[in-house]
This record gives sequence, C-alpha cells and structure tokens, in this order.
Amino acid sequence: MLLGQALVLYRIPSTGQYALLHDRCPHRFAPLHRGKLVGDSIACPYHGLEFAASGKCVRNPLADEPPRTAVRSFPVVARHGLVWFWPGDPQQANPSSIPNYAFLDGQEVWRRRSRFAGHHELLADNLLDLGHVDFVHTATFATGGAHARAEQEVTDTGDGGLLVRWTLREVFRSTFLEALFSPAESITQILEMSWQPPSCMTLSIRYGITDANGTMVEERMRMINPHIATPESQSATHYFWTCFPDAASEAFARAVFDGEDQPMIEAVEQYMGGEDFWALRPAVLPGDAGALRARRRLMKLRRRESPSGRLDDLAALDDGDGPLE
Amino acid sequence: MLLGQALVLYRIPSTGQYALLHDRCPHRFAPLHRGKLVGDSIACPYHGLEFAASGKCVRNPLADEPPRTAVRSFPVVARHGLVWFWPGDPQQANPSSIPNYAFLDGQEVWRRRSRFAGHHELLADNLLDLGHVDFVHTATFATGGAHARAEQEVTDTGDGGLLVRWTLREVFRSTFLEALFSPAESITQILEMSWQPPSCMTLSIRYGITDANGTMVEERMRMINPHIATPESQSATHYFWTCFPDAASEAFARAVFDGEDQPMIEAVEQYMGGEDFWALRPAVLPGDAGALRARRRLMKLRRRESPSGRLDDLAALDDGDGPLE
Amino acid sequence: MLLGQALVLYRIPSTGQYALLHDRCPHRFAPLHRGKLVGDSIACPYHGLEFAASGKCVRNPLADEPPRTAVRSFPVVARHGLVWFWPGDPQQANPSSIPNYAFLDGQEVWRRRSRFAGHHELLADNLLDLGHVDFVHTATFATGGAHARAEQEVTDTGDGGLLVRWTLREVFRSTFLEALFSPAESITQILEMSWQPPSCMTLSIRYGITDANGTMVEERMRMINPHIATPESQSATHYFWTCFPDAASEAFARAVFDGEDQPMIEAVEQYMGGEDFWALRPAVLPGDAGALRARRRLMKLRRRESPSGRLDDLAALDDGDGPLE
Repeated sequence: MLLGQALVLYRIPSTGQYALLHDRCPHRFAPLHRGKLVGDSIACPYHGLEFAASGKCVRNPLADEPPRTAVRSFPVVARHGLVWFWPGDPQQANPSSIPNYAFLDGQEVWRRRSRFAGHHELLADNLLDLGHVDFVHTATFATGGAHARAEQEVTDTGDGGLLVRWTLREVFRSTFLEALFSPAESITQILEMSWQPPSCMTLSIRYGITDANGTMVEERMRMINPHIATPESQSATHYFWTCFPDAASEAFARAVFDGEDQPMIEAVEQYMGGEDFWALRPAVLPGDAGALRARRRLMKLRRRESPSGRLDDLAALDDGDGPLE
Repeated sequence: MLLGQALVLYRIPSTGQYALLHDRCPHRFAPLHRGKLVGDSIACPYHGLEFAASGKCVRNPLADEPPRTAVRSFPVVARHGLVWFWPGDPQQANPSSIPNYAFLDGQEVWRRRSRFAGHHELLADNLLDLGHVDFVHTATFATGGAHARAEQEVTDTGDGGLLVRWTLREVFRSTFLEALFSPAESITQILEMSWQPPSCMTLSIRYGITDANGTMVEERMRMINPHIATPESQSATHYFWTCFPDAASEAFARAVFDGEDQPMIEAVEQYMGGEDFWALRPAVLPGDAGALRARRRLMKLRRRESPSGRLDDLAALDDGDGPLE
Repeated sequence: MLLGQALVLYRIPSTGQYALLHDRCPHRFAPLHRGKLVGDSIACPYHGLEFAASGKCVRNPLADEPPRTAVRSFPVVARHGLVWFWPGDPQQANPSSIPNYAFLDGQEVWRRRSRFAGHHELLADNLLDLGHVDFVHTATFATGGAHARAEQEVTDTGDGGLLVRWTLREVFRSTFLEALFSPAESITQILEMSWQPPSCMTLSIRYGITDANGTMVEERMRMINPHIATPESQSATHYFWTCFPDAASEAFARAVFDGEDQPMIEAVEQYMGGEDFWALRPAVLPGDAGALRARRRLMKLRRRESPSGRLDDLAALDDGDGPLE
C-alpha cells in the first residue's frame, strides 16, 4: 500500500526487471498479490486472469480469448539497491529526477525499513531541524545543550533540493573521538542534511579541524546515511534507513527512531487531528528554516500538478517570521 | 443486526409463533433483547416497559397507564426450519414469495451459519461462477482444470429466479465414484445453482450417464444444499448452509468456505473500498453470465422499490460483452 | 482529554496553584504533557519551547528571543478537593457558579473516577430516574418493586438546579435497618437527587419516621454522595463518585455502576447511533420529569451561548405528556 493504493511488485522472470501493478484485478477486484506468476505474467487468485508486466490482460484460462482489460502499470527503476516508481502521468516519468544514492554502492550496511503512523512531511520536519536532539533524544545522543550553540545554514542546491548544515565547535571529546584527535586539537562537527523532493534525505556527519574562517581544513571522520520517506497514505509512512552491519548499531538506531522520534511524530500526527499544517498557523522559529522551505517547495510542486489547489497556501506565510524563501 | 437494524426475535409463549421487533425501546433506547419475557410481551431491561408481539407498548410497571408508543414489528414466517422476515412495507409481505426449501425437511443435515465481512452479492458472485473452483479451492475440491472444459448454461426459471448449469464430462474417477460406476462407463457431473432474489441459492450436484445428446439418462448420485445469504449490513453478511451430519463433513465445508472463499470475498470487499460494483466498471467474462444477471435483477428490484435511485445502473452494462439480459 | 480537547493540568511550583493549558505546542503540535516543568513553566518535549501558566511562550532555548506565540490557558479553581475549570469565554468565568460540594470536606471517603463510552446526559438520565433500580440493579439494590410505589416529586431549587425526591414508605426491614428501628415502627426512606448544570449531582438518602402528613419527623440515618459527570467528548464521559473507605464498599459501588449502569448507558449510546436525543422522539413517561427538565435546562443554556443553534429543540416537547417545564 503506497500513496493510498494497493500495489503489487514482482520481478519479471525472463528479464529480472521489476514490474509494479495496481494490485486489483479489474474483473472481481481480487488482490493480485495473492496469485502466482505464470511465465512473465501474474495470475489473479480468484478466476485465473493473467496480466503481463505492462498491465494488459493476456489470458483467461476459462475462455478462448482474454477480455480487453488491463490493470494500471507504473514506471519502475531499480538503482543502487533501491526501487523507485512514478505514480503520476507515465509520460512525465523521468529517471534523471531520481535522487542520487550512489554512495550506497560502496557501503557495507544493513538496509532497514520502519513504518510510522504520520504524514511523510513530519519526518522531514524532524530531520531538517536537529534542534530537537537535546529534547527528544535524551536516552541516545543528546548533546547536553551543544545544539543550542550550533550555527545553522540553509542553502539551495540548485537542483530543486536543499542542504541544511549545522556546525558545532569544540565538540565534547568522547572516547570515540579521543582516538582521532590529540588533546590540543579543537574538534569541529559538521552535520549536513540534504533534502530532495518529495522526501529523500541524506545525512552526512564529519569530524575535523577548521581554520580561522571556520572552513574544515582537515577531515578525520565521515559517515553518510540515507533517510528516505515513502508515503503509505496521508497518515502513514515507510521510512528507509541504514546502519552499520551489526546488531548493536541496529539496536541503537531503533532506540533513536522507534523509541524517541516515532512516538513524537505519531503524537504530532494525532494532535494535528487531520488538519492542514498551515491551517494550524504554526509558530515559526529560526531553527525551522530548512523544514519550512522544504514544505513550501512541496506545496509549489503540488500546485504545479494540480493548479486548482488552495491558492492561499503560500500567502499564509508572507506575514511570517523572516525570509523563509 | 440485520440490514443495518438491531432486531430482537423471540417465540411467543402462548402460540409458539415467532415475533420480530426493532430491538430498541422508544423511551430511552435500551436494547430490548437484554430484557425478559413477561407473558407474551418483552420487557425493556432499563425501566420495564412491556411490548406485545405487535410492537405495541402494553404496560408501564411504574405507572397506571402505558405510554401511547410502540416499536416496529416485522412480518415473520417459519418454514422448513428457516425463519423468514419482511423488512419492507408490511402490506406487501407475501409469504408465497419465499423461496422453496422444502427439500430440507427430508434431509438429516447439520445446519450451520458463517459470517463474512462483505456485501451479500459477493457471495452470489462467488457461487454463481464456479470457474473460481480451480483457483480458490486448491486445498479442497479443485478439479485440475476440468472446470475450464465445463459447459455453462444460464436459464430463466420464470419465477424471478435463475438457474446456472455446468456440465462436466468424463469426470475423474475418484474412489468415491469408482464404487458407483463401472470402468467402462463415462461419468458426467451436472452442477446446478439456482438463485432466487435477493440472495437465496440452492446447489444440486448429480453424477450419472448421459446419452449422445448430453441428456443425463441415468442418475446414480444426487446431493442438494441450500446457500442463503442474509445481510447484516452493507458490508457484512450471514451465510446459511448445511453439511452431512458428521464432524468431518463440517470440517471440510469450513475448509472450503472459511479457509478459501471467505478470505477472497473479504479481500474483494476491502479492495472495492466501499465503491459501487458498477462504478468500478468490472471487466466482463463469459463465466459471469449468471452472476451478472442476478446482479441486474436485484438492481431492477431496487429501482422498483425506490424509483429515485440511480438510473444509469443498467445502462452501464449496455456496452458490455454479450447478451446478459 | 476533556470536551474533545487535549489539556494539560499542572501545579505551579512557586504558588501551588493549578494551571490548565491546551496540551499542544503551537510550533510543531507536540503534546506538552510529555515535556517537563522548568521553573513555573512547562517545556515542550520536541524543541524545548517554554510556556508560562498564562499560556505565553516565555523562552526558546535554541534562540535569543521566544516567538510571539501562546497556548490557550483555562481558568481553574480547586475547591473541596475537586478541580473546576471554565472552557468558555474566560471573561465569563464565575467561581460562584461552581456547585457546592462542601459536604465532602467532612467526609472520610474514597474518591473514585469511572469512564463510560456515552454522552454525559445519559448519566443524568440514569440518576434522575431511579425507576430503573428494580430493572437494572437486579444483582445489587433492587427493591423488589418498592420503587413502583414510590412518590416522586421534582422541584426547582431556584438557583438553576433541580431536586428530585422519592419517598418510599414501609421500607423492607433489612438487617441493617433492624438495628435502627423497633419492630413497631414504620420505616420511610427519602431519596433526594439534586442536579446542577451541566451535570453535577448529589444523592442524599435518609431513613426515618414520618408523621401523618408524610413529613420526616425523626431522621435515623443519612448518607450523601457526589455524582459528577465531566465530558471527555460527545461520546465519552468521566464520572466522579465516592464510597465508604473500605474495599467492600468500593467493590459494591463498582458492581452497581460498572456492572449494571455502565453496560446499559453504553448500549443506549450505541443504539442512539449518534442521533440527537430529541430527534429520536423519545416516549415520555411520568418518571422522566426530572431527567427531561434537566435536559431542557441544558438546551436553554446551550441556546443562550449559541443562539444560532436549532430553535425547534424545545418545541419538540410542547406536544408532550404533561407539564415538564
């Protein structure tokens, strides 16, 4: 179930390519995913109609001719171990718009999926404002107030995306960092969260030495992780992430998200009561710059796709607190 | 709960007749079925108001006079071990329209009820198109493709009902059939599913020898079973059926319905998402002839009862696949 | 959750007073009750915004200045061990309108809360018509028909409230009463249920000797108990009550309410199917006088607050059974 639609994904035996179809037979509306593959087709589990990867019905085992019917088929591309599909007008599907997760090819990581009961933009809100770390992540990586002193900068990446950078100076010397820096060196941490619409994020964390201008001149350590949200519906989201390939790292990542972020995100979803984010007239804080720009870019993309949408969405912010975009 | 209404059924002590009342006291809306019988009346469990089988309030135990109020009473008839009621205009209740299940009187069978989360027409769809047998009943009585070679014929029974007949020739000689036919004889099976509106079906299964014209000239075995659907609501149905009076037969029947048909019917109900069947523009197959004629007859009956209904229901099929009615 | 709103109640450390706030941060809509107290303020658990008891945001720990925002704060008063709040226009909050529960100060009782899935007026219906006792309380204090002979009188208390009085004469001499009355004395029981809008009730039970005019001239025993309903929503209610301070008394009280009244009230809520009470045109009985007058007073109060409400509410009863108000 993605974007409120039941879908069935399978690999075409003869080619190894993926096929993604509406998971509902057009005859009696049975779930195709309960059927089985017959050659490169998928057979309905109710009366046996067979559908090709294109969605076309190619055989009725109980008659000489198949009916002239089809299920919707979606463009689908596998890249860097992720499967991407295009739910809109197939003519406009453009694989070059797929965010670049090539870095995953070089990583030995465990790929994991979480699911939360909330709109996908609540995950971007969370990840694009790391100011929540000291309040939400009290049992995992709270910094004891260091984030309050972080410099935050939001930049347009020129390709439709955003980059939010936090620079933390004189970082606490944990055992882990003691091994990388001498006692005399001042440690700087740079966190960068990139965002590509609709909800594809990447977090890079770097530790190193900066010069007098604040530029990191010597990098000692770098980690990079995907954070990708795929909507199941307006109120539920699949969240794809990775961790180091060991059980302790996975357990820590689950403590961070399942134990701390997810309860907060789901509470927010519940407390919003199905209302539109802007209709609730949220208070705007300096730390919101990244999250609000991402929300506004999505609004613009939605309006481009359906111009009859609410035209006052953007205006709602024009009396807001500062130059958000 | 039938047809979306809470009802209470009881036997009138002095006559043994059935009474069927709206199960809601008109005073404070308590469920009458939690009360008790006082003479031939039913007493409300909250403040004790007593209602006769006619629905009239006949006593207030806390006052000298009963209030001038009543609950709705429904015409009800017991016949051949089944209780039938008329939920429409009482003036139009006509016991002669009750489908004939007299054959039950001669049967020693176990009478059973199942309940599924789906519209009652999904059960008729299922039973009037036995083409599903080889795909759904893989663990019970799949024929290994024999149904694909069955001849199907749909006839109008002239009394508002339909009869769907499947003729299967050169049937596989199971142990059970070996005892009835000599090795030289070719076995023919005739399945006949009769349908009476709204959703009363009977399945007859016969094994025998046919002549050159395909007429069964010698019948060696016959079974006949009721399949009756009573709506609990628009999305839940009670299903009444029988089986041979032994635990193994009941277990097999439950494996067939509870284990195979019910999951499919409930998935279809869910996948239809509350939409009207015709609005989903179902693909039409040759095997649908019986099920679609039954659906169209019900549509006509509904339009007769409420002419203000949607007038395009029938037109939706006029561009369909073949002469459906 | 009260009146359909999430609220957070806390005691202000420096004063010991109560503060009651909308439990939703105006920034990202997190539940404030999951946060913590910082001085006299409550800090949001998501990004740390701090709100004073007035609702005003007084600090953003991640910026120099707090945003100009606030959460709604409700007037709140603690009195006789109960906390009262005013959900309407704060200017009209008037502590003198709080019903008088001073008698609680002199009682050693256990204070308890039940919760039922029904509108709060269904509890008043129940308590203001004790005619249900012999039908609902069959396992606890049914009187074997004595209530059918009770005299019921409803009086206006002049302060917006009502008093329903039941007088039962020649009460059955239980072991408990044998100790208080000689065999020659005729025992009279007077039950008085007072009602104050919106749903604050008090039950007084007295046993004694009456003179020829029916006036109780000698009281031998008196009990007095609060019965207060606070709506959680339109379909769920918190019910506050007390019992003697021992486990057996609490168990009996729970058998009476949880075991007998609550199932009935919840069934009525369900059977009303979300419909308005008057729209269901309830049959009116003599015993309803108290409950219906209370319902009509609440309707009048609602109309005063929102004159655009349905104007035919009261008219619906003008063709009713007797002088209800």
